[in-house]
Amino acid sequence: MKAIQDYYPPEFAHCFGCGPANARGLRLKSYIEGDETIARCVPPAYYTGGFPGHVYGGMIASLLDCHGAASAAAFAYRDRGRTMGDGGPAIRFVTASLKVDFKRPTPLGGELIVKGRLTAIDGRKATIALSLQAGDELCAVGEMIAVEYRPKIDSVADQAS
Amino acid sequence: MKAIQDYYPPEFAHCFGCGPANARGLRLKSYIEGDETIARCVPPAYYTGGFPGHVYGGMIASLLDCHGAASAAAFAYRDRGRTMGDGGPAIRFVTASLKVDFKRPTPLGGELIVKGRLTAIDGRKATIALSLQAGDELCAVGEMIAVEYRPKIDSVADQAS
Repeated sequence: MKAIQDYYPPEFAHCFGCGPANARGLRLKSYIEGDETIARCVPPAYYTGGFPGHVYGGMIASLLDCHGAASAAAFAYRDRGRTMGDGGPAIRFVTASLKVDFKRPTPLGGELIVKGRLTAIDGRKATIALSLQAGDELCAVGEMIAVEYRPKIDSVADQAS
Repeated sequence: MKAIQDYYPPEFAHCFGCGPANARGLRLKSYIEGDETIARCVPPAYYTGGFPGHVYGGMIASLLDCHGAASAAAFAYRDRGRTMGDGGPAIRFVTASLKVDFKRPTPLGGELIVKGRLTAIDGRKATIALSLQAGDELCAVGEMIAVEYRPKIDSVADQAS
């Protein structure tokens, strides 16, 4: 099953956090499952925070940010009755704002699960509720406002057609 | 001149974003200058976002997060009439929440400047206003609520004495 990020146009697939084409990046993979999106990730040990055994805060924000932008795109396809990879212009969102509440230290070494839910969508603007858990333990929650980034996507679609 | 992070106890100096002891990390250095804190950073090219030539969102959040936590510590020393490295128990803050507003795409390749200002401090809780600019261009602003992380720091101070 292809991840949401695998449908990003190749020209825009180099994000350090989730671009399939970034060899040095995290290559986060997000999937839509029912009413939510989900991504799983095991950050390497060098992403430690200042306190041993825990993930550094920037990584947590990165995972929420990349997963949130992918989620916004996936929910927008659904909202418009479209399917990713349907041959139409690619839908791609960028982050306008991201709020992260760190609930407890996030353990380093195991799998982290990032989830997203659509709370509002209105034209080119989507609001996504996010969470990050380690096992059953909720470590962080977030809220993202994402906006569709249209001009360059259209130009790529134009080039592809 | 030593950076704020250079005063972190060695046991807690491994943060990927700003720990002096993390060989693979960014080793962000923050300084206090008058009423504000400042850090400068040139992210390597592989920290690109999905859109070519721009920094990925997670890096921006990481820089604000690490700089904000360092700023909180520096402002707390000042608030208590103390000096970093004065031999007393180290003061260290962790992030409770971080909000980032992305104002415009952040160009990749040049120096980024991160600034912090103290907007409130009350006991173990500090609120820091943050900004990130490329040259004179404001690319992102943020607000962090940081809380002092005391128990382990005290135990380290105890061990050191």
